[in-house]
Amino acid sequence: MPKVVDHALAWIGGDKEAMKIPTRDDVLDAAQRIGGLVKRTPVMTSRAIDSIVGAEVYFKCEHLQSAGAFKFRGASHVLTLLTEEEKARGVITHSSGNHAQALALAAKRAGVAATIVMPQGSNPLKKAATEGYGAKVIECINTQEERERTCREEMERTGMLLVHPYDDWRIIAGAGTAALELLEDVPDLDAVIAPVGGGGLLAGTSLATTARPVYAAEPTGADDAYRGFKSGVRVSEQTPNTVSDGLRTCVGELNFKVICEHVTDIALATDDETIAAMKLVHTRMKQLIEPSSAVPLACLLNGSLPAEGKIGIIISGGNVAL
Amino acid sequence: MPKVVDHALAWIGGDKEAMKIPTRDDVLDAAQRIGGLVKRTPVMTSRAIDSIVGAEVYFKCEHLQSAGAFKFRGASHVLTLLTEEEKARGVITHSSGNHAQALALAAKRAGVAATIVMPQGSNPLKKAATEGYGAKVIECINTQEERERTCREEMERTGMLLVHPYDDWRIIAGAGTAALELLEDVPDLDAVIAPVGGGGLLAGTSLATTARPVYAAEPTGADDAYRGFKSGVRVSEQTPNTVSDGLRTCVGELNFKVICEHVTDIALATDDETIAAMKLVHTRMKQLIEPSSAVPLACLLNGSLPAEGKIGIIISGGNVAL
Repeated sequence: MPKVVDHALAWIGGDKEAMKIPTRDDVLDAAQRIGGLVKRTPVMTSRAIDSIVGAEVYFKCEHLQSAGAFKFRGASHVLTLLTEEEKARGVITHSSGNHAQALALAAKRAGVAATIVMPQGSNPLKKAATEGYGAKVIECINTQEERERTCREEMERTGMLLVHPYDDWRIIAGAGTAALELLEDVPDLDAVIAPVGGGGLLAGTSLATTARPVYAAEPTGADDAYRGFKSGVRVSEQTPNTVSDGLRTCVGELNFKVICEHVTDIALATDDETIAAMKLVHTRMKQLIEPSSAVPLACLLNGSLPAEGKIGIIISGGNVAL
Repeated sequence: MPKVVDHALAWIGGDKEAMKIPTRDDVLDAAQRIGGLVKRTPVMTSRAIDSIVGAEVYFKCEHLQSAGAFKFRGASHVLTLLTEEEKARGVITHSSGNHAQALALAAKRAGVAATIVMPQGSNPLKKAATEGYGAKVIECINTQEERERTCREEMERTGMLLVHPYDDWRIIAGAGTAALELLEDVPDLDAVIAPVGGGGLLAGTSLATTARPVYAAEPTGADDAYRGFKSGVRVSEQTPNTVSDGLRTCVGELNFKVICEHVTDIALATDDETIAAMKLVHTRMKQLIEPSSAVPLACLLNGSLPAEGKIGIIISGGNVAL
């Protein structure tokens, strides 16, 4: 798999507005703003999985969110914060994953034009879904450089506003609203676990969660967050090797700062462990979740996170090619 | 695939007690009896599927029922009706499918012994799940004759009570409680659709549903109910050829009588249409349903059932080997 280099300011060509450090108040504000726009996803449990884990697990089902992932929360939040002038310009991003569909749908709902730069070889279903939400898709060669160059050219040509998939306070605050809802529904959770890729969901979850530990779960084949968290220095480059395609990227700058301050610990799971956990959710809960979403359960099952009491897990998405 | 011959009285060796014709009151009574035993499954909708179908579709999610299928309702209902003497004897059935797991789990919850005769070559996951619920599994050669003979021998040896998977008023009444709940949650449905195999779910649904049409959906490769309904004479023998493994059996005697009286029409879908419908539910709703459960949606999409207004579909189960 190709090397991933990620640096938000380089990536976006310098939108400093997006780079403030978010707080819990930003998550609470985001919840107010997007309450009527996003689905309040259910919290599911499974007696069978509880007995295997040896704890009570509460799954916050963001695979049932609009566009199939928690990403719709952050994208919707960004759209609510744009001025009329900004809305008229439209939004743009480059993504081969859930952020593409999320931004396309959020923009459509807000009546805003969207362009998504997708690398050649992206899942054709995801491309079709993104176009189905009315976005313009521009294909480019699948290197980080070409994605950025194509995106930048299009921004310069059209004046569209770039929406980063995770390294943006508005995205982080929006993502955190899933954990807020989970804690409203199950107020006596003993811990919350989120997967970590770019870190938007994890950072948001850590801001939303108070008075109990927040853990992160990461694939061994893309362990930049783990290494950065342990050393205190963000890892901004890695060659990922994992089935969890939503978690291949490096943690963003803002995300890393929030995570270092608010997250209790980060644990790892191998792809085999993740696939076993995913199959457990498929067979026992009949929920189609993507591998990235199964890493937290895998970390409970492999013993790298404490399986005790009542544990909340944010299921990040369900956009898997069967 | 082997020929299926089904005739309840022959099958069960003559339990005439089970063969009364059920009424709507039996469904209402069943709902009272099993209310605390079965899950009240959610009703799900999908904007994307609605726009493809051209109608509002409300999916009653029995794949989220305990043991993964609506079958748990009927099995639980039977257990509530047994005397203490009958409970002490235990229950038995032969099944390679969802009825096996449903009866095993219902018996376990009621503290009653259960034996399941399963043909060799049954899905090992289903066998493991059945044993996991504490039932004794006896394997036999996979012919109708051997299944019946093995079951009868075991009944004679042990005195266990046979619980037929569908041709039993208690099973029909229990199955009908899913539609009752659906209509409580969405009282203004214009029609209800259920798949038809042995006909327990369809017969129960047709008793539970008043004041609007009830449609059945059946695979073209196992169209005995369709042919029987059109001719007025039950088809008791067929050589099924369909991926919908829950719908390969012929409609039972009791079931046929109820269906002829209460069902509005029966429609057919090919396996290709069913698989396309199942994939739509997988990708758009993230719900793992088995092929049998997708036949009603397939009949809406292929135009054999009217796609108008608000339509309720009973999703029968989710026990699919991925």
